[in-house]
Amino acid sequence: MPYTAYIRRRIFGVLAATIVVMTVIENASTMMTTRATMTTLPPVLYSDNGTDIDLREIFIGRCADFKAGRVNPTVDLNELRMKNCTHLWNLFHSTFKYREACNVTRPMYKEFVAEATITIPSNKSAFWDGWTIYDTVHSYAKEGRRSWSLEYTLMGYLINNLKFCGQEAEPGLRYDSCPGPDECGFAKGCADAFWAEASINFAKQAKGQVRVFFDSNREGGAFHNNNSYFAQYELINMDPDAVENVNIYLVTELETKSGDNCTSPSIQELIGILKEKNIRYTCYEQPRDVLHLLCIDGNESDECILQKDALVSPTDVALPLTTSSSSRTRNAISISFQVLIVIFVGFTHRVLHNT
Amino acid sequence: MPYTAYIRRRIFGVLAATIVVMTVIENASTMMTTRATMTTLPPVLYSDNGTDIDLREIFIGRCADFKAGRVNPTVDLNELRMKNCTHLWNLFHSTFKYREACNVTRPMYKEFVAEATITIPSNKSAFWDGWTIYDTVHSYAKEGRRSWSLEYTLMGYLINNLKFCGQEAEPGLRYDSCPGPDECGFAKGCADAFWAEASINFAKQAKGQVRVFFDSNREGGAFHNNNSYFAQYELINMDPDAVENVNIYLVTELETKSGDNCTSPSIQELIGILKEKNIRYTCYEQPRDVLHLLCIDGNESDECILQKDALVSPTDVALPLTTSSSSRTRNAISISFQVLIVIFVGFTHRVLHNT
Repeated sequence: MPYTAYIRRRIFGVLAATIVVMTVIENASTMMTTRATMTTLPPVLYSDNGTDIDLREIFIGRCADFKAGRVNPTVDLNELRMKNCTHLWNLFHSTFKYREACNVTRPMYKEFVAEATITIPSNKSAFWDGWTIYDTVHSYAKEGRRSWSLEYTLMGYLINNLKFCGQEAEPGLRYDSCPGPDECGFAKGCADAFWAEASINFAKQAKGQVRVFFDSNREGGAFHNNNSYFAQYELINMDPDAVENVNIYLVTELETKSGDNCTSPSIQELIGILKEKNIRYTCYEQPRDVLHLLCIDGNESDECILQKDALVSPTDVALPLTTSSSSRTRNAISISFQVLIVIFVGFTHRVLHNT
Repeated sequence: MPYTAYIRRRIFGVLAATIVVMTVIENASTMMTTRATMTTLPPVLYSDNGTDIDLREIFIGRCADFKAGRVNPTVDLNELRMKNCTHLWNLFHSTFKYREACNVTRPMYKEFVAEATITIPSNKSAFWDGWTIYDTVHSYAKEGRRSWSLEYTLMGYLINNLKFCGQEAEPGLRYDSCPGPDECGFAKGCADAFWAEASINFAKQAKGQVRVFFDSNREGGAFHNNNSYFAQYELINMDPDAVENVNIYLVTELETKSGDNCTSPSIQELIGILKEKNIRYTCYEQPRDVLHLLCIDGNESDECILQKDALVSPTDVALPLTTSSSSRTRNAISISFQVLIVIFVGFTHRVLHNT
């Protein structure tokens, strides 16, 4: 699934556009006389930033880093040794160079995707759908050490977060603007078409226990069957002979009422599809590993209180050694008192009842 | 502090060495006639792998990625726009090119470090010492979104995990081997000298609340005052007027007996130094945010049991909806029973005592 940077710096975009539009105009006049096949530039700007100025440098640098196992240390280095970064770059950028941004379709990326494929270890594949869960999955994956989302495969890492699109006119890449997500239609256009093809490849390789992450409060239901990369390119391409079990992870942000649960219609629809495909599943509401991940930044939340902090008596709570006063353990103390009060009330009630 | 990749692939090293030694021999003979200042190659191989073949490509690629805010999204993009990646590369590699690997000293990196400096936000600096805590700090930092370790500053990110060293002979970089950590002496030699200078720069910038991470079971004590980048380059360079409080994080791996605590001599030595510098501190044993981080991969550990799983009655525990049986919540059920038994025994004891 694509990671398109929503948080793009507009100022940078405008600066880049100013410089590059001038270059484009200059080149366009040259091209008028040199390229007989020229068509006019699309009249409108797309909604997202144009091609990254340093696209090639970033691609080649990421590729070299990934090949050495410095990004995802759980890769097969022997397999990666066979990959040629310059060759991958040529396959990749020739797919959209000199093509109008929305005229790029999924099958055009087949060769690049095939060449960039690496083996994904069993039990590691992590799928997700819906932008609101992306950050959590990204942290959970731990650069592939815990789990592989598409973004920690070679092809995903190479392209993640980059902006790129082409145009028929010289210089073949468009620097003033590129289509945003879905701007050319679902899974169409130079970026979305890549992510669709990459998603198919990713899903076909899934083996053993796999995970799929959803935000329980996603608008329109945790699982979407339409206009969803997960539903349309991944779920249907999972191999029932290879995938042993799909672990459905329904995650709810801390301090938020949970939305869909395992019996909600949206998840039941997903379960129905899995049953039809004869793939086993387990559905978790707020799975504990993900909850601990959320609790790193929210350990004052009720959900995050640890038993060891809740059950100790107030005098046992280790107060931090400090030059200043601290209130870290206030919660733990208050909860310990609550437990004592409950026991005391219970006891009193029974004694009164007996007498 | 340096991240020198201990997990280097020896096979790759040997392959690279074979290819490169041949090139070196070839070049050496040419050089005999062209470089009057030539001295002989050091007779022995160093213990670590030689310079990364793609060093320049990786450096430039990482620099472009970082500049765009794609690595650490909490950076100041306006400040980064002024950085020129090619200029930084020239400053960096000219420091050690054509120099024997162990002849590089800390001050030689001053210009590169000064040029690569970026502003570190208040309350974000994360220090650490001792390799056994590195992975935890790295995960905790969350690419700078939660905390900035040196590795998520521009200069740290550029160099982290890379192998590089020079030689007087052509081609000026040594590809057969490079010194490992401390091989040229503490903080000496082309890699260690860089990390020492970078550590000084990093510490001088620390503002507000800062954190320092230690493994409580580190050999020789959590805090080391000798041969420690933290003690010798960071701690002494913290500005007491800028650093409001040092939060000492003493971390113990799950299922492990804790080693040093806040009153242990090693930590008391650190506290002594802080007091002398007039810097306030707070010391945490197994700080809860880090504990939750560890619990992601160890949520069956006793330390990781959440109050919400421990106190609910067995019938309230949500069993996962599954096609197969599951034992996820066995612990929670057993602990709830333990709590009930304790209450029951207490009650019986009081009743018997009364009658």
